[in-house]
Amino acid sequence: MIRDLPILAVTPGEPAGIGPEILIKLARGHPRLRLLAVADIALLRQTADALDAPVDIEEWNPGTRVSAGRLACLHVGLSEPAVAGQLSPRNAKYVLETLHQAVRLVRSGQAAALVTGPVNKAAINDSGHPFSGHTEYLAALAETPEVVMMLTAPEIPGLRVALVTTHLPLRQVADAVTATRIESTLRITHHDLRHRFGISRPRLQVLGLNPHAGEGGHLGLEDDQVIRPVIEQCAAAGMDLVGPVPADTAFTPNRLADYDAVVAMYHDQGLPVLKHAGFGKAINITLGLPFIRTSVDHGTALDIAGKGMADESSLLQAVTMAESLAMQH
Amino acid sequence: MIRDLPILAVTPGEPAGIGPEILIKLARGHPRLRLLAVADIALLRQTADALDAPVDIEEWNPGTRVSAGRLACLHVGLSEPAVAGQLSPRNAKYVLETLHQAVRLVRSGQAAALVTGPVNKAAINDSGHPFSGHTEYLAALAETPEVVMMLTAPEIPGLRVALVTTHLPLRQVADAVTATRIESTLRITHHDLRHRFGISRPRLQVLGLNPHAGEGGHLGLEDDQVIRPVIEQCAAAGMDLVGPVPADTAFTPNRLADYDAVVAMYHDQGLPVLKHAGFGKAINITLGLPFIRTSVDHGTALDIAGKGMADESSLLQAVTMAESLAMQH
Repeated sequence: MIRDLPILAVTPGEPAGIGPEILIKLARGHPRLRLLAVADIALLRQTADALDAPVDIEEWNPGTRVSAGRLACLHVGLSEPAVAGQLSPRNAKYVLETLHQAVRLVRSGQAAALVTGPVNKAAINDSGHPFSGHTEYLAALAETPEVVMMLTAPEIPGLRVALVTTHLPLRQVADAVTATRIESTLRITHHDLRHRFGISRPRLQVLGLNPHAGEGGHLGLEDDQVIRPVIEQCAAAGMDLVGPVPADTAFTPNRLADYDAVVAMYHDQGLPVLKHAGFGKAINITLGLPFIRTSVDHGTALDIAGKGMADESSLLQAVTMAESLAMQH
Repeated sequence: MIRDLPILAVTPGEPAGIGPEILIKLARGHPRLRLLAVADIALLRQTADALDAPVDIEEWNPGTRVSAGRLACLHVGLSEPAVAGQLSPRNAKYVLETLHQAVRLVRSGQAAALVTGPVNKAAINDSGHPFSGHTEYLAALAETPEVVMMLTAPEIPGLRVALVTTHLPLRQVADAVTATRIESTLRITHHDLRHRFGISRPRLQVLGLNPHAGEGGHLGLEDDQVIRPVIEQCAAAGMDLVGPVPADTAFTPNRLADYDAVVAMYHDQGLPVLKHAGFGKAINITLGLPFIRTSVDHGTALDIAGKGMADESSLLQAVTMAESLAMQH
């Protein structure tokens, strides 16, 4: 018996950005996928028309079958028509509502995984809805207090980067890197690499906070006083990890190949390498949620929205990863 | 008339590390170089004997000619014999004295450039001599208050990373990124790219301090309040620069190829990509000094010192770059 491919809920995100366009291109180019968009159905149809893309878009309701070769759509209405390239604060609520509906789909099992397109954080915040990022917002929706943002470039062995802190001003980072948060990041990363990625004994490199991992205390004390004790405690509990490792030596190709993931202390310590090596093919995955969630690694690209120029590679990677994780599950 | 190749002063650095070994391997493998080592001559001879490397090492005194095919050595005596792999605090003073002597050589014009091997910062500090890094120490010796540490991977177009701050605990970074320091970093980098590297109109990417360059103030204010005004002021003065650019998008291969250098705000924001992409071939260059100085990008590697296993590639790159800069000069 051939098992049906998993149904993937997809939120194209900001309606004035490239999200709708890359979703239509994905559906057209990859008819084997079972895609359930959560979006304004008229917006998707207009986008397909503008691209001259013959994609069969049909409204989905609970109980309706999602078939390969067509794009099912759980309709969420825009607050006002979207104009490519022009953010409208009135549509911020629409963007958030698509996330709420999509989370309901994956939590109820009507979809096997959630794939998110790009949103504009500042536009959502400016509309009066606090929003520091998809990762944090989905964690709150799922009532999961502890999640981990991990990015990966599947073509590069071992290049998975999990973050202890995410979207914080740099001056708040040192205080936010607490033993509790490091411990939960290591635990969740280790757990999900085993249970979602099927790596039986994950090996982790844990970065230091300071340059040269503090250089024996000469460049900061947190590496030895905060990070090292957590590593020792987790190692004693059976995890396979090394650290604190200086950030500038952890990413050499040899070291990456020897480990399954790098745990970085903050955003700009871990992600520049990821996007250098994996641009266009990097994927954002939220670990620790009660469902599978992947995302593109790029923004809304307002400057090219509506011009037919956007590249759907990152969305394809995110969808392929979500499908693969859902089939392991 | 064929011009003589420039004389390069080389400090092999920590005597218990791999520095002496990689210098001997370099001299043996590249007889065309005119090398003037600043080190203990007996240590170099013992290292050559142990490697069974037929290198002709001769003591140098002011006025002596430095010839290709031989290794000249300005002798500085060790405080006690060096044992490979074992740091001795008593030899920290020797390490610093080799730097003092080497700076005299380049300042007096007896050598055209300085190339430094690896030292152990903690060992020097533990011996009672404050030492936060070669870059800072050489700046003090040269009485040059403002220098810039830049790393480069010559094989990757545009992958030069200049740092606004260097060896600081992370929690001190945000306050150290002042308008004055950013301005001097941009000015020195721009100047030296023109006058030392021969790039007539250098194009610089200037990173933000916070993730996503502050995301319009939602992730920190320094990007807009401190960094952007300096960029605008330098642009008005005729420099070609963009920013503040989010660190995780600045290093994509397309962007790197469009610019001549990335100016990063701190160590672990800029160097992981450099060492990922250029390991073994990355070079550290100090800009703003009254002489040319390049360095290996690796440490003392005490664990393999004395075993004949060390790879001289990074020293060769540093020497080649120093020679090329000296010939442009």
